[in-house]
Amino acid sequence: MTIQPVILCGGKGSRLWPSSRKSFPKQFAPIFGELTPYQELLQRLSGEGFAAPIVATHDDFRFMATDQAQEVGIWDANVLVEPEGRDTAASVLAALMKSGAGAETLFLVTPVTHFEGSDEAFRQVILSAVDRVRRGEIALFSDAAADAAAPRARVAGGRAQNFAVVQGGASDACAAGMALARGGDLMRAYERLAPDLVEPCRRAVEDGAPDLGFFRFEPEAFAGARKLSFAHDIVGRAERTVPLPLGGACTDIASWNAVWTLSDRDADGVATQGDVMAVNCSDSLLRSDEDTIQVLGVGLKNVVAVAMRDAVLIADRSQLDAIPGALAKLEARGRKQAAEYPRYHRPWGWYESLVTGARFQVKRIMVKPGGVLSLQSHVHRSEHWIVVSGTAEVTINEEVKLVPENGSVYIPVGAVHRMANPGKVPMFLIEVQTGSYFGEDDIRRYEDIYHRC
Amino acid sequence: MTIQPVILCGGKGSRLWPSSRKSFPKQFAPIFGELTPYQELLQRLSGEGFAAPIVATHDDFRFMATDQAQEVGIWDANVLVEPEGRDTAASVLAALMKSGAGAETLFLVTPVTHFEGSDEAFRQVILSAVDRVRRGEIALFSDAAADAAAPRARVAGGRAQNFAVVQGGASDACAAGMALARGGDLMRAYERLAPDLVEPCRRAVEDGAPDLGFFRFEPEAFAGARKLSFAHDIVGRAERTVPLPLGGACTDIASWNAVWTLSDRDADGVATQGDVMAVNCSDSLLRSDEDTIQVLGVGLKNVVAVAMRDAVLIADRSQLDAIPGALAKLEARGRKQAAEYPRYHRPWGWYESLVTGARFQVKRIMVKPGGVLSLQSHVHRSEHWIVVSGTAEVTINEEVKLVPENGSVYIPVGAVHRMANPGKVPMFLIEVQTGSYFGEDDIRRYEDIYHRC
Repeated sequence: MTIQPVILCGGKGSRLWPSSRKSFPKQFAPIFGELTPYQELLQRLSGEGFAAPIVATHDDFRFMATDQAQEVGIWDANVLVEPEGRDTAASVLAALMKSGAGAETLFLVTPVTHFEGSDEAFRQVILSAVDRVRRGEIALFSDAAADAAAPRARVAGGRAQNFAVVQGGASDACAAGMALARGGDLMRAYERLAPDLVEPCRRAVEDGAPDLGFFRFEPEAFAGARKLSFAHDIVGRAERTVPLPLGGACTDIASWNAVWTLSDRDADGVATQGDVMAVNCSDSLLRSDEDTIQVLGVGLKNVVAVAMRDAVLIADRSQLDAIPGALAKLEARGRKQAAEYPRYHRPWGWYESLVTGARFQVKRIMVKPGGVLSLQSHVHRSEHWIVVSGTAEVTINEEVKLVPENGSVYIPVGAVHRMANPGKVPMFLIEVQTGSYFGEDDIRRYEDIYHRC
Repeated sequence: MTIQPVILCGGKGSRLWPSSRKSFPKQFAPIFGELTPYQELLQRLSGEGFAAPIVATHDDFRFMATDQAQEVGIWDANVLVEPEGRDTAASVLAALMKSGAGAETLFLVTPVTHFEGSDEAFRQVILSAVDRVRRGEIALFSDAAADAAAPRARVAGGRAQNFAVVQGGASDACAAGMALARGGDLMRAYERLAPDLVEPCRRAVEDGAPDLGFFRFEPEAFAGARKLSFAHDIVGRAERTVPLPLGGACTDIASWNAVWTLSDRDADGVATQGDVMAVNCSDSLLRSDEDTIQVLGVGLKNVVAVAMRDAVLIADRSQLDAIPGALAKLEARGRKQAAEYPRYHRPWGWYESLVTGARFQVKRIMVKPGGVLSLQSHVHRSEHWIVVSGTAEVTINEEVKLVPENGSVYIPVGAVHRMANPGKVPMFLIEVQTGSYFGEDDIRRYEDIYHRC
């Protein structure tokens, strides 16, 4: 018996700002330790008994979904790209159809949540439901432990129709429960409860197309699917749904209060991460998300403070709901920190701006092994590249050459150039741009292996 | 008639951390707007009626004292360098002796304080005291406005001996009042009240030496001077001292509460500086000290938050006294942010570290017109220099060449090299260091125009 995981991770939350942003949502952000919640979930759902995961995510996060899976050794994830967010019911239905699996296939549909307990305990809970699911029931797993701070699916027991699936606002796609069901039973539930979704999703799959290892739903058809919640509107209202306890605390990390709840705290209720000193503080969460920033908190009560290189949040823990509205205002004022993460993920790797001044900008760039930037030129800037780790293959006009560690190269204004990493280890490079304008739109692209021309 | 200003600015406070540090004290930090408190004071004491200022400061700040004076157009400041802090009474006595002025000369001795009022109003207050000072009185100016948050010299009226000069702890040298007196009257006060200071200060001056435009007191002699406060132990106890009101609020910016008090605040008592959004906050001070950092405060009451690139303070306004102790602990743990400012001032300009990673470091460097770095070499690193503004004169081994804006140059490990700015405008340069060790002690110096070899 094999279970087919379907991971829903298209959410765009802003409740864990600044550690997550609209461009870098919480499921992909390392809020606790090294691994991201998405990576923890992937590991939990890998190995014996589980098929290669289906991952449904937004267009913006497709490379992140693949990269982070590969970082934990999962190379066979099937990433389905949603051209726009249509809530979870449409995501799941299109994923079921795309899987091509039969009516008897067992699907485990889950948002990205944090599970406190061993992977083995998790697996046992899932397996214990298999028999009843094979008899036609739909299992909706949830954790009944009360936690006012972290919205989650709550199960009162009794009739499934009465489930109050509390949704996490902006992070809706990741806030609901986890379901185990046969493909056929789920299809019947859709046909009864949301028959209007069937045709748009069928066309989105039939007219969709593979794209660099992803599968992209056809945008126009997918846009026609009504926005409904899988947990609330489909599973929560299906005839044979049974609520089951997860047996371990399962928390949607929906706010900084949830992070505080899940963190180790001292006797005064203070949780810290990174270079933080707390003096006379209580019931607070203090984080430095960069190893170059020292945070000092003095006399704070019930406060969340999170320091990053480009943004700092300081909030009373009773007023965290005001964060998304404030960020919307900041975004409207053109403050890029409101929505953009300071490290920009690209198919070839990532870059970050270290400093911008009059007539110059300094960036740090990482190119993955095999990564190739587009062949491009700039009208307004010249560039100096210094390889600090790994080896770069650099194209400048007609010339192609290898630049080793500690080597440098100069790209004049207007030169057609390209950077690639032909090696086996990540290549790190410092780029110093000089000129009058440094916008990302001063790029004329001639060729791009990731089809971005 | 000419008044001789003596500015006391050797203080090393940590109460405005992180905007000021032990290595960059508040008198030199731009807490309000563009000018520093030291620069505001210099401007106030320049022009008709005032002689070129005498500035008494600590060895560590001598270049800052000169540079900041020149930035506001004052090129003739006489900077006296104290090899170690011996409190203000010794500073003033040695300054009086060094000035060589006669007994009739009028001295205006002042710490660096913030004066709310026009420069003209300030000048009038000083001038109005001249007649009585010429008759032998010592005027001690102060502001009687109550401000529990900001320690300052308080004048109850009546006998000068009863002055309660409240001192600002670590920032002692800048916390007391301002005095106008004849040199001879001050000398007599010293001879009566602190006769043991006379000999050490006399020797510190006689055996002291000019050094690159500064005058450095002889260290051993100066170290023998007892630590006494000029305002409290000399002027406050002198026989003919008269307290006079300043006629404008004069505040020692001794803590973040003083900054909050002096700042523009909204109806809820919230003062902000830089890119800050405050939502539902009250009676708080929220600052972003870098134009690349967005601060968001939500639901804060009575909080001070200050964000810099390398350090963030969040403190309840009633517990600011805990800051110096916390910083001492951080310093003991080797956290350089506790005492060092992220921009390092040097005689030739300044540098700051932008990012440090495995095997590389990126610095931004500014060299003043005419500035010349030492002729040096490194054992552990090579360097790439990219000129982003101005022109550099670069020496590498036997070769000397000019590197214009947008030019770059490579300094191999072991090469004897030097950077200078032969131009008329500041030169800005990005330095990328690659290697295994980046400590400032990996510098072998061969020549240094600032005598640092």
